[in-house]
Amino acid sequence: MASRSIRLAVIPGDGIGPEVVSEGLKVLDAVASSGDLTFERTSYDLGAARWHRTGETLPDSVLEELRGQAVILLGAVGDPGVPSGTLERGLLLRARFELDHYVNLRPVRLYPGVATPLAGVTPEDIDMVVVREGTEGPYTGVGGVLRKDTPHEVATQESVNTAYGVERVIRYAFEVAASRPRRKLTLVHKDNVLTFAGDLYQRALKRVAAEFPQVTTDYCHVDAATMFFVSQPRRFDVIVTDNLFGDIITDLGAAVAGGIGLAASGNVNPGRTAPSMFEPVHGSAPDIAGQGKADPTATILSVAMLLDHVGAADAARRVERAVSDDLAERAALGARSTTQIGDAIAKRVSG
Amino acid sequence: MASRSIRLAVIPGDGIGPEVVSEGLKVLDAVASSGDLTFERTSYDLGAARWHRTGETLPDSVLEELRGQAVILLGAVGDPGVPSGTLERGLLLRARFELDHYVNLRPVRLYPGVATPLAGVTPEDIDMVVVREGTEGPYTGVGGVLRKDTPHEVATQESVNTAYGVERVIRYAFEVAASRPRRKLTLVHKDNVLTFAGDLYQRALKRVAAEFPQVTTDYCHVDAATMFFVSQPRRFDVIVTDNLFGDIITDLGAAVAGGIGLAASGNVNPGRTAPSMFEPVHGSAPDIAGQGKADPTATILSVAMLLDHVGAADAARRVERAVSDDLAERAALGARSTTQIGDAIAKRVSG
Ligand SMILES: CC(C)[C@H](C(=O)O)[C@@H](O)C(=O)O
Ligand SMILES: CC(C)[C@H](C(=O)O)[C@@H](O)C(=O)O
Repeated sequence: MASRSIRLAVIPGDGIGPEVVSEGLKVLDAVASSGDLTFERTSYDLGAARWHRTGETLPDSVLEELRGQAVILLGAVGDPGVPSGTLERGLLLRARFELDHYVNLRPVRLYPGVATPLAGVTPEDIDMVVVREGTEGPYTGVGGVLRKDTPHEVATQESVNTAYGVERVIRYAFEVAASRPRRKLTLVHKDNVLTFAGDLYQRALKRVAAEFPQVTTDYCHVDAATMFFVSQPRRFDVIVTDNLFGDIITDLGAAVAGGIGLAASGNVNPGRTAPSMFEPVHGSAPDIAGQGKADPTATILSVAMLLDHVGAADAARRVERAVSDDLAERAALGARSTTQIGDAIAKRVSG
Repeated sequence: MASRSIRLAVIPGDGIGPEVVSEGLKVLDAVASSGDLTFERTSYDLGAARWHRTGETLPDSVLEELRGQAVILLGAVGDPGVPSGTLERGLLLRARFELDHYVNLRPVRLYPGVATPLAGVTPEDIDMVVVREGTEGPYTGVGGVLRKDTPHEVATQESVNTAYGVERVIRYAFEVAASRPRRKLTLVHKDNVLTFAGDLYQRALKRVAAEFPQVTTDYCHVDAATMFFVSQPRRFDVIVTDNLFGDIITDLGAAVAGGIGLAASGNVNPGRTAPSMFEPVHGSAPDIAGQGKADPTATILSVAMLLDHVGAADAARRVERAVSDDLAERAALGARSTTQIGDAIAKRVSG
């Protein structure tokens, strides 16, 4: 069988980023070696270290190089010495916006054997996919400040939402919902207060729903949604929501599904006009960096999402199964290092 | 002792609103009769019923009458027949904005005996006060829609934040923090993305902190805050946050502290240039209206907040204690009706 070569950009980043990425790549190698895939890797030095050295976040030339890649794996970026917002906006959000990652895909799933902070909740209760809009809403950076540092200062932030942007992410969410057994899609917003944006989402939902008669839809205010995440998570199958609400509820989702160490995500450009980027939801955790304490599972699950994106569904399922089997036994195994967890999952994938 | 008469506006509203308000007033009467307070009540017919009949939400003339009251008790408004946003913006938010309720005060406290969805959490772990800004941020209604119902539609929402508005709510939050044993204030925002507004909050926090050297401060992104609400709620003492983040995290707070049936709130005008308004966080719950199933506890706790606001701290503590004692025994008592709960708490208050 001819082997298919895929250009993979790797951005290890800072803190625990390089540690978890290296386990992600270990698992990717293990699954690729037994299949017909090869990954042609290029590593990019981006993040806090580069910023401290050069003041750069995502230079245009690097962005152009990234455009030539098929897919990106990112660890985590940032350290306490970088002013808040610098790398977030200059690197992460810049990549999401420039590479048109309009779908920020975040599964929220409680794996068997994983401890949740919620009492009496089982894996059947938490199995959803959040489709978060990734390229507009309150994340545009539109806004400004007037009369800074005076008693008359005014600071604004504008949420910009377009029919183009909203409809395409909703359509993607319908596709995800149609592919799942429950076929249910919930719009999460705050349409009783953010009436202009909320109404646009509601009308787009109604329009696109006509194309997916097999999917049932409902609506939930974001404040109520956070309540249901802890009191009735089963209520949700697929959620579509805006950039900011998606940010908030997926962190909460990670918490109820066993913690940020397990939460994977994909910044997806479904039309493949630019590479998609996969990354754990967690940050660079400088406090535990270099100690082998980081859990690489979120990165490994992000690798599974990456495999799905490049059309290697079988390989993706194998990685997911290996993670799931590993998680099921974790409670009995005691503390393991980052590398030990990566080794164990890679072994299951190869075996 | 001369009795002090206080003008109280009552807005029972729709659904379970009138049921819970009537228990709140029962408890208020019970505590007032044994003290030196009398309440001169006026009831206002506002909400879905009035809107269906007249199309009015909060007419100017009624708003003017409300300004002449000392304090307002509101049940809940809304029914499924009213378009989303109509009463929220036309009545609730209009009252908050016109009456300058810049502090939206929301205690999040797990009472002994109350079941929480969180495993292994005790009342000591959840005892915080959220000070939510109430008169600006993303709730201004500023924004609009262009090219509606075309593929080129654009819908915007603007978050407007002022040094004036932010500093005053932060100062109030510091006062609350200074009055509590832990003396800790956490700013919750998303300053790495909403950089203009977040920076204004951060600078205002730093300025006002100089007036409260005894209070320690820290910062938490809103997404991370939702994680900590379920994984480490003890982390928080007093939180100050913007209007939208406050809306979201206080619903989550209600959920982890035993549910929306217990969550009280005050829309406070600290300078008393207009009446403050106290209301349960829950809505009108039309599905259970008229069945005696609604829990009046959130309204009764809102009455305690109202008593604090009018300077009747002893009466407020008595109501809180009565609620706390009632909650401690609830698990053993089985299901009770709205009225039975109100009667039981009123009896404890009088006894
Ligand atoms: C780092 C930050 C900009 C980012 C976001 O807000 O989207 C993060 O919280 C996430 O969820 O990926
Ligand atoms: C009804 C709605 C406008 C309101 C809000 O968003 O503030 C409610 O959710 C609340 O928290 O009091």
